[in-house]
Amino acid sequence: MSSYWGKNLKLTIFGESHSRGIGGVIDDLPAGISVDEAAIKEMLARRATGISKIATARKEPDIPEILSGVFNGKTTGTPLAFVIYNSDQHSSDYDNIASTARPAHADYTGFVRYGGYNDYRGGGHFSGRLTAPITFAGALANSWLESKGIYVAARIKSICGIEDEDKNIEQLSADEVRELKAKPFPTISDGQGQKMFDCAMEAKNDLDSVGGVIECTIINLPPGLGDPIFGAFESRLSELLFAVPAVKGVEFGAGFDIADMTGSEANDEFYMEGENIRTKTNYNGGVNGGITNGMPVTFRVAIKPTASISRPQNTVNFKTNTDAELVIKGRHDACITLRAVPVIESCAALCAMDFLLGGKKIDE
Amino acid sequence: MSSYWGKNLKLTIFGESHSRGIGGVIDDLPAGISVDEAAIKEMLARRATGISKIATARKEPDIPEILSGVFNGKTTGTPLAFVIYNSDQHSSDYDNIASTARPAHADYTGFVRYGGYNDYRGGGHFSGRLTAPITFAGALANSWLESKGIYVAARIKSICGIEDEDKNIEQLSADEVRELKAKPFPTISDGQGQKMFDCAMEAKNDLDSVGGVIECTIINLPPGLGDPIFGAFESRLSELLFAVPAVKGVEFGAGFDIADMTGSEANDEFYMEGENIRTKTNYNGGVNGGITNGMPVTFRVAIKPTASISRPQNTVNFKTNTDAELVIKGRHDACITLRAVPVIESCAALCAMDFLLGGKKIDE
Amino acid sequence: MSSYWGKNLKLTIFGESHSRGIGGVIDDLPAGISVDEAAIKEMLARRATGISKIATARKEPDIPEILSGVFNGKTTGTPLAFVIYNSDQHSSDYDNIASTARPAHADYTGFVRYGGYNDYRGGGHFSGRLTAPITFAGALANSWLESKGIYVAARIKSICGIEDEDKNIEQLSADEVRELKAKPFPTISDGQGQKMFDCAMEAKNDLDSVGGVIECTIINLPPGLGDPIFGAFESRLSELLFAVPAVKGVEFGAGFDIADMTGSEANDEFYMEGENIRTKTNYNGGVNGGITNGMPVTFRVAIKPTASISRPQNTVNFKTNTDAELVIKGRHDACITLRAVPVIESCAALCAMDFLLGGKKIDE
Amino acid sequence: MSSYWGKNLKLTIFGESHSRGIGGVIDDLPAGISVDEAAIKEMLARRATGISKIATARKEPDIPEILSGVFNGKTTGTPLAFVIYNSDQHSSDYDNIASTARPAHADYTGFVRYGGYNDYRGGGHFSGRLTAPITFAGALANSWLESKGIYVAARIKSICGIEDEDKNIEQLSADEVRELKAKPFPTISDGQGQKMFDCAMEAKNDLDSVGGVIECTIINLPPGLGDPIFGAFESRLSELLFAVPAVKGVEFGAGFDIADMTGSEANDEFYMEGENIRTKTNYNGGVNGGITNGMPVTFRVAIKPTASISRPQNTVNFKTNTDAELVIKGRHDACITLRAVPVIESCAALCAMDFLLGGKKIDE
Repeated sequence: MSSYWGKNLKLTIFGESHSRGIGGVIDDLPAGISVDEAAIKEMLARRATGISKIATARKEPDIPEILSGVFNGKTTGTPLAFVIYNSDQHSSDYDNIASTARPAHADYTGFVRYGGYNDYRGGGHFSGRLTAPITFAGALANSWLESKGIYVAARIKSICGIEDEDKNIEQLSADEVRELKAKPFPTISDGQGQKMFDCAMEAKNDLDSVGGVIECTIINLPPGLGDPIFGAFESRLSELLFAVPAVKGVEFGAGFDIADMTGSEANDEFYMEGENIRTKTNYNGGVNGGITNGMPVTFRVAIKPTASISRPQNTVNFKTNTDAELVIKGRHDACITLRAVPVIESCAALCAMDFLLGGKKIDE
Repeated sequence: MSSYWGKNLKLTIFGESHSRGIGGVIDDLPAGISVDEAAIKEMLARRATGISKIATARKEPDIPEILSGVFNGKTTGTPLAFVIYNSDQHSSDYDNIASTARPAHADYTGFVRYGGYNDYRGGGHFSGRLTAPITFAGALANSWLESKGIYVAARIKSICGIEDEDKNIEQLSADEVRELKAKPFPTISDGQGQKMFDCAMEAKNDLDSVGGVIECTIINLPPGLGDPIFGAFESRLSELLFAVPAVKGVEFGAGFDIADMTGSEANDEFYMEGENIRTKTNYNGGVNGGITNGMPVTFRVAIKPTASISRPQNTVNFKTNTDAELVIKGRHDACITLRAVPVIESCAALCAMDFLLGGKKIDE
Repeated sequence: MSSYWGKNLKLTIFGESHSRGIGGVIDDLPAGISVDEAAIKEMLARRATGISKIATARKEPDIPEILSGVFNGKTTGTPLAFVIYNSDQHSSDYDNIASTARPAHADYTGFVRYGGYNDYRGGGHFSGRLTAPITFAGALANSWLESKGIYVAARIKSICGIEDEDKNIEQLSADEVRELKAKPFPTISDGQGQKMFDCAMEAKNDLDSVGGVIECTIINLPPGLGDPIFGAFESRLSELLFAVPAVKGVEFGAGFDIADMTGSEANDEFYMEGENIRTKTNYNGGVNGGITNGMPVTFRVAIKPTASISRPQNTVNFKTNTDAELVIKGRHDACITLRAVPVIESCAALCAMDFLLGGKKIDE
Repeated sequence: MSSYWGKNLKLTIFGESHSRGIGGVIDDLPAGISVDEAAIKEMLARRATGISKIATARKEPDIPEILSGVFNGKTTGTPLAFVIYNSDQHSSDYDNIASTARPAHADYTGFVRYGGYNDYRGGGHFSGRLTAPITFAGALANSWLESKGIYVAARIKSICGIEDEDKNIEQLSADEVRELKAKPFPTISDGQGQKMFDCAMEAKNDLDSVGGVIECTIINLPPGLGDPIFGAFESRLSELLFAVPAVKGVEFGAGFDIADMTGSEANDEFYMEGENIRTKTNYNGGVNGGITNGMPVTFRVAIKPTASISRPQNTVNFKTNTDAELVIKGRHDACITLRAVPVIESCAALCAMDFLLGGKKIDE
C-alpha cells in the first residue's frame, strides 16, 4: 500500500509535481552518520533538468531543506525529514490530461486507482520528479558506503542499440568510478557515448524519444548480505528499481543471457585469491541464493523511451469514454536514461545500506 | 529480514530440505474463501519431482496438511497454516557441502550469513523445495482468481535459445489456458517444445544442465491495481519472482527490448473497444505508472541452468579457505525451467490476489 | 524501530523541538476524504501552549502547512505530508541538559540510545511538541469519523484524586460531545473541574506539578473491528497511547477494577435492543476477544505529573558519571493532563479510522 | 491485520482450538541460539491445564514439535516453525455457541468479524489455547535472556482484592526468581497466596470465577532500549500484553497511582551507585521517554475473571437476533490468573529480546 521501502532503514517519499513540495522521511538511520549536504546536492544535480540537450529544458532547482533528524552535521537517529519545495508552476497547462490519457503515462491508471481525486497536474505523484527524494536518500547512503570503501557506479550501457565499450564496469577502481560519475554522459567509451547522444538528439528533432539500458555495480560489498527467500538481495533491490518510473526490466549478472547458458558455463567457480574467496566469472551477479558472495553486485535495468513526446497521439478521454487525440505540450526529455543514472545508483546504494545496517544476526 | 511477503495477504514460509517439514502461514486471507485441496495438489504435482526425464528422479511426495485456518472447506479469516512433511532423507550424503561450496549454490553465502549454524543438508532453507509452499499459496490464489474470471498462464518461452512459437500468450482463452497448464511441457507449439526438451536431455546426457525463459500473463485483471512508487505492481511482483531460486532477470511487456524502441513506437495508444478502454499494443505489459491498465500483465523471467551438475567442478573449502574440487552426487534436474512454471504462475497469482484484496481505497 | 504507526493507514512523525520543523506523513489514506483545515487547527489549538494558567506560557503557534496529498480540499490517495515549522528558540538555554539528566525525562536514556548524537535541545524528538503531528492526524481522522456518525469524546476523569462526576461519558449525545470539547476544562461537572484546576494551580505555585487520568470513549463504532491476537483493538490502541509522553497506564472498560470482580458480575450480558445487539453493562469496554462489539469503546489513561518542575532536583551528569543538582529553567506545564486531552482523542480517532479502513475481509 | 508481532524478531501464531494444531513461526532469530527444549516444555507446563484445582481439569498435553529452524540444538537463523497438535476433541459440544454468544467471549464479535466463517468450536482462534504458542516463543526468549543475566519474574499480585506481601519484586535475586517460578502458586507470601487460592475455590464452588492482577518485572535490562514515539518500550510491550485474552489493563511503574502524585514525588531522581546510574525510586517503571533507563522494567496487568462460568446467563442468539439463555458446559478455569503468569512473563521476555536484537543503531 504505502510509499515506503526498506527494512533496516525506512524511506517514505511524498509529494506531487505541483504540490507545495516533494520530499521524504528516512527512518531508522543510525545516529552519528555524517550528512554531507554538498554530496547530496551534487547527486541531485546529476538528475536535474537542463543538464543536457537531451534532457528537458524545464527549470527545477531542487534545493532540499532538512526539516529534522540532523544535528551538528550528523544524524540524530530519529527520523530525517527533508523537503524540496516546488516552484510556481503553470498548473493551468494540465487541464487536458485531467481527462485525456497520455499514452504510457499514469493519467488513466491513476484516475481509476484514486477515483479521480489524484492531483493530475504534471503527473502528480507519478511525476518523474519523485525520483528526487529517492536520490536525496541515495546520496546519503552513497556517502556512507564510500566511507566504508564501498562504491556504486553506473553507466549508460546502450541507447538506440548502440553499446558502450564492453569494458567490465566491475573492475573500475575507486578513482575511475569517481571519473565516470563526473562525466556529463556516463559511458566508459566517450566515443560510443557520443553516438548514443547523437541518436537521442535525432529522436528529439524528430519529436520523438528514446530509451536505453543502464548498468550498475556495487563494488566491495562484503559476503553474507541478503535474507531468506522473499528477502533476497535481488528481491529487495528489484522492488526498488521497478519503483523508478520507466524501468521495465531488471537483470542480475548475465541476466537473460544466462537462460541460454549451460550449468558448466554459468556456474561461477570459486577460487582462493590470497585469503579471499572469489569467483572466476560473475554470471550470477555477486549473489548466490539471494545472498551476496563478495563479488560485485552487478545489474542492468531497461529504461523505456520517455512517454512524453511532442507528436500527436491517439488516445481516449477516460471521463467521457471516447476516442481522442492528444498533443502533449511542454519541454520533454528526449532521453530520460541520462538523468536516471544517479537514481539507479541511489537504489543500489539504499539497498546496500539497508542490508549492511541489518548487521550480523548471529548469536555470540 | 523475514521470510514473508505481501501487504493485503501475508505469506510466511519455513522449512529446510531435511527438517521435519516445510510449509507456510498465509495470514489476512478473507474469511469464506473456498479451499480447493484438489486444485492445490494438482498445482503441487506440476512442480513435483519425477514429472519428466529432464526433472530429478528423487521422490518427494509433497502432500500438504492444513493445520489451521480452514473450516468446512472455507477459510476462517484467521491464519491458514500448512505443512509438507519431509520424508526420511539420507542426511549423511551432504557432509561434503558443509564445507565445500557447490558453485552457484548458497553453501558459501549461507555459511557466511548464518555463521555456520545453517542447516546445510540438501541446501537447507535455500533448497528449491521451498518453492512448494509458495506453490501451495499460489494454487489457493489461483483458484480464487479463476472464480472471478481472472486467469494466470505461463509457458516455457525458450530453452537453449529455441523459442516457442510467437503466438501471443495474452490472447489465450480460458480453455486454452487450461489446456496449456495440462501439457506435460507447457509450450504453445508442441514441436518447439520437443526441440527444447531434446536439448535439455542432451545436456543431461552430457552431465550438464540448461536454463530457460518463462513467460507468464495475468488475463482479465481490472485496471487500477498498484500502489504509489515503492508499491508498484512491478515492484511487488518482481520482489516475489526474484525470491524464486534460479531467477536472474524479470521484465515486463517488451522488457529489455523496449530500451531500443522510440517513444512513438513504445507508447501503447489507448482506444475504445466498445465500452472498454484498451491499448492497441501492450509493450508496457499492462502496467502504467506502477498501476494496472486493464490489459494483460505480461512478464518474463530468466531461469539460470540448474546449479547442480554431475561434472567435477573447481571450488573452495570455505572452512579451511583452500581450493578444492567437487563432484555433486545425486539425481539432478537437467532443466529446472519446467518445474518452475507453476511456481512463477504462483507468484503472479499471489501478487494479483494481494492487490485485489487491497480493494478500492476511495472514500465514499 | 521506526516512528510509524498503523496498518490500514500509516502515520510517520518527525521532528525535534529545535529542528526546522515537526510534522508527519499519513500514508494509505483513501482518496477523496475532505480535509477540513479549520477543524485541524481547532484541534491543534486545544493542545496549544498558553491555553490555561496551568499550561506553559511558552508561545508555539503550531500552524501546519500541508506539503502534499491534498488537492481541491480532498485527499489524493497519495501520501499526505505536513509540517509545523518551529519558531526561533533560544537553543543556548539547553546546554546543561546535554549532560545533566532531568529526572523522569529522556535526557539520559536518549543519550544512551543515540550514543550522544541526539538533539537534546528542548528534549529533541522526545519533546511533548511531537504530539502536535499526532493531533494533526487525529483531527483529520476525527472529522472523517464524525462524517460517519462516530464520535470520540474525552474528559479529565481526575486530578489530585478529585474525581469528575460519575456521569457515564458513554451516554453523551453528539451535541454533548461537542459541548465537552468546547470547554476550556473538559470535565462533565464544571464544579469538580474547578477543584481540579485549583489543585493544579496550587502545585504550580508550589513549583511542582500534578498528573491526572483522562477517560475517553468512541461512540457508535460498528461491531467487528479488530484483528486476531496481536492485532486486537486494545493492542493497537494501547500501542499508540503509550507513545504519548507521560502515559503510564491504559485500561479498557472496568480496567483494573475488573480484576476484583467475579465472572457473573463482569460478564456483560447481551440483549436485544430492538434490532440491535447490546450489552447491559460495559465492563469490557466495548471489546470482546480483541474485536469491537458495538458498545462504546471506553478507556482511561494515567498521565504522570509533568516531569519539568522548577524545584531543584538531585540527578547525575551522565557524561562525567557524577552526582549533580539541577534546576530546570523556563515555563512549565503545571498539569499536562489538560493539553493531553485532544492527543488522547487523536489516538482513539486514528485507531478507529485505521480499523474501519481495513474494511470487511470476507469473501463475497 | 495479521497475527504477528515484533520488529527485530517476528512471531506469527496460528491455530484454532479444534484445528489440526496450533503453533507459530518465529522469524529473524539470530543463528546459533541454543534451543533448550526442556526449558520450553517446563514453561509450557506452567500454563497447562490441570495444574491446580482452580484451573480447568481438561487435558491438553501441549507437546510442541519443531518443524524447522533448529539444527544441532541451535537456531539456524531461518524461520523456526513449531506446532502443538490438538488432541481429539468432542466438537459436537460446541454447536450452541455457533449462534448463542457466551457473554464476554468472542463468539458474537468473531461472527461479525469473519462473517460467520470462523471456526467457533472451543472459541476457535480466540481460544486461550493460543497463548501456548506465545509461551513457546517466550520460553525461548527467556532462556536467551537468562544466558545474558537478564531475568523475568512475575507474581500474582492480587486476587479478590487480597494483596500479595508488598515485598518489592524488583529486588529479587536470580535464585529468588527461580524459586518464585517453581511455586505452584507464585506469590511472594505463601500465606497471602493461600488466601487468594481459597477465594478462587470459593468462586468455583459458587459456579463463578475470579480475576486478578499479575505483576511482572524484567531485571538487569541495559539502558537504551526503546525506539522513538510509536516504538516506545511501553508501546511495544503493551501491544503484546493486550493480545493476551482477559487482559484489560496495563500499567508501568506506579501506573495509575502516578496520576495522583506530584512531580516532586514521582520524578525518580538519578544518582550514582558506584559506576552505575540508578534512580532512587522507580515510579516510572524503568522507562523514560519510551527508553529503558537501566532500572527494572516493572508492570502490572489486570486479568478479568474467566468469562466461562457454569451459571445460566442471559444473552442473544446472533443468528436469529433474539434474546436467549445459555449454560456453558464443560470444565472451566475458576481463575485463569494462575495459568496466565507464564504467558505474561513470555510477553516480557519476547519484548526484551526483540529490543536487544535491534542492537545499537549508532554509526561507528
